[in-house]
Amino acid sequence: MIKVAVDCFGGDHSPQANTDGALQALKNHDDLHVILTGDEALIRQALEGKDYDKDRLEIIHAPQVITGEDKPTDAIRLKRDSSMMAAVKLLREDDSVSGMVSTGATGALVAAAVLRIGRLRNVIRPAFCPILPTMNGGVVGVCDSGANVDINADFLQQYAIMGSTFLENVYGVKNPRVALLNVGTETEKGDALRKDAFKLLSETEGINFVGNMESRDLLSGKYDLVVCDGFSGNVLLKSTEGTAVELLMKLKQGIYSKTIYKLGGLLLKGMFKEIKSLMDYQNYGGSVLLGTSKTVVKGHGSSKARALTKCIEQVYLMQKNDFNNKVEQQLEIIESKRNN
Amino acid sequence: MIKVAVDCFGGDHSPQANTDGALQALKNHDDLHVILTGDEALIRQALEGKDYDKDRLEIIHAPQVITGEDKPTDAIRLKRDSSMMAAVKLLREDDSVSGMVSTGATGALVAAAVLRIGRLRNVIRPAFCPILPTMNGGVVGVCDSGANVDINADFLQQYAIMGSTFLENVYGVKNPRVALLNVGTETEKGDALRKDAFKLLSETEGINFVGNMESRDLLSGKYDLVVCDGFSGNVLLKSTEGTAVELLMKLKQGIYSKTIYKLGGLLLKGMFKEIKSLMDYQNYGGSVLLGTSKTVVKGHGSSKARALTKCIEQVYLMQKNDFNNKVEQQLEIIESKRNN
Repeated sequence: MIKVAVDCFGGDHSPQANTDGALQALKNHDDLHVILTGDEALIRQALEGKDYDKDRLEIIHAPQVITGEDKPTDAIRLKRDSSMMAAVKLLREDDSVSGMVSTGATGALVAAAVLRIGRLRNVIRPAFCPILPTMNGGVVGVCDSGANVDINADFLQQYAIMGSTFLENVYGVKNPRVALLNVGTETEKGDALRKDAFKLLSETEGINFVGNMESRDLLSGKYDLVVCDGFSGNVLLKSTEGTAVELLMKLKQGIYSKTIYKLGGLLLKGMFKEIKSLMDYQNYGGSVLLGTSKTVVKGHGSSKARALTKCIEQVYLMQKNDFNNKVEQQLEIIESKRNN
Repeated sequence: MIKVAVDCFGGDHSPQANTDGALQALKNHDDLHVILTGDEALIRQALEGKDYDKDRLEIIHAPQVITGEDKPTDAIRLKRDSSMMAAVKLLREDDSVSGMVSTGATGALVAAAVLRIGRLRNVIRPAFCPILPTMNGGVVGVCDSGANVDINADFLQQYAIMGSTFLENVYGVKNPRVALLNVGTETEKGDALRKDAFKLLSETEGINFVGNMESRDLLSGKYDLVVCDGFSGNVLLKSTEGTAVELLMKLKQGIYSKTIYKLGGLLLKGMFKEIKSLMDYQNYGGSVLLGTSKTVVKGHGSSKARALTKCIEQVYLMQKNDFNNKVEQQLEIIESKRNN
């Protein structure tokens, strides 16, 4: 049985999206067990009338909610009875629980993960690896998208190893093509960090490093994993999302501006729907924090049930495919080489 | 008379786009004088049969061409007889020439600008400030988009001053809203550089600093100028462009995939054209290198005549509106305050 804790509060559609997402995940996987954390009465209300296997669902009562206004370090210290910290506590204390999903405040979640859950052996710092859809129907991971803004080349090497293992074991990508985010594709591009990282990644065994990439190629399908510092990863991710959103909004406004365009829009409705669905982050799961000793998945604040199910399945697949051991083994090899 | 040098080679549509662009700029401005540099025979061929005021156009013969394959520092040393270096020489030696436009190799152009043309008084390092269209029909500048990857907060303060002056004097933006690119909008976000810069920008008189911005809001029209290090600026710019290109391509593919979609696309043709035109960088000029003692504009390699005209007009407007003096005066005030 694979056990996953689900923080049922802190998202825009909590707790209903969280409980509905959990029930769907239970339906999809016979060997999944879910532990919901949060205000029990509200959770029971959200579960009312739903059909599910009661043996594989537990509730842990924790009535407080951590919000974006709470200072992360204060939140984890003072709101011990919150839905998020109840899930964190489970991960910390119950060996049989594989990981957790939260759609709550990112800062508190990262702080709790780093301070309370701890890292896999040899991991310097856990890093976020969100997954984006590419325009040819594939996916691309971006690691790190904002957990660590001050880094060195060793971080990027670990991101490459953890991200590759993640893409292989959760998304079935064989031998993921790893690229270093840079200001140009030529070998000699970038600042000292990028030059160091290029050399280190080129020498790293067990990953398929294909060189530098420019941010314009993120969605092109040429790469499976982009490694970068958390600052530029955050810029990359949000500008990609932002541009897509602005552009689609502009198209929508344009379509509504004239009768003939409205008619055109009507004929293209199916196509727009396909593209919107292709680009819908809800279909790709959450941002997994790679490198913690128990898996922590940050779902988007606006996640609906469908996204929650995917987030839970990310934890499930990582456990099922032995992600943690695989990463620790690879990092061990690198460490022992470094020390020889 | 405002004199502008135009490097006629190195672009995808050189020299025809460069000469056609120059002729249009001459038509638009009676007090503009253009000096074309490059292989004279080829330039004369491109000018053949065109109608223009011969008193306001000169040609300087320089048959070599610097390409992207040339190492920047080698190129400026060894290809002295190139179209680019001939224009640089003019700026260096002829006080009456205000600036230059090139669609050639960026690395060589930056190296030549920094090493041969020099900086305005008190400028630490010149920085690129490309202009993008926002979704509400305005523009937004990004400074720096790649000239300097290793910087401190003082650089960003100068980018804010130079970029604001640029937007006011070339694009008519009153009191430009300046934002600091960061991983979140809250005051305390980011690494040490961002925290330092936030404080410094908040204290800087003569600019309209409105706080941190996330990359997702670049095209929203909420900001007029984004200041950032050259690495993240480059990521921001290219991911915005790349996403727009990928998405529009996807739409095009979708439209061609079914007869009913083709019909819808036909009805929406006018709207797509409008959006494409709104987003066409060729309408917004080149990437101006702010802070050099003579203006240097880098036009996109794929620039057509229309873009070249805009690039020339950027130099023209900066000279006409006394950009250099205005920037030097502002930097002088800051310097004298710092020293007191």
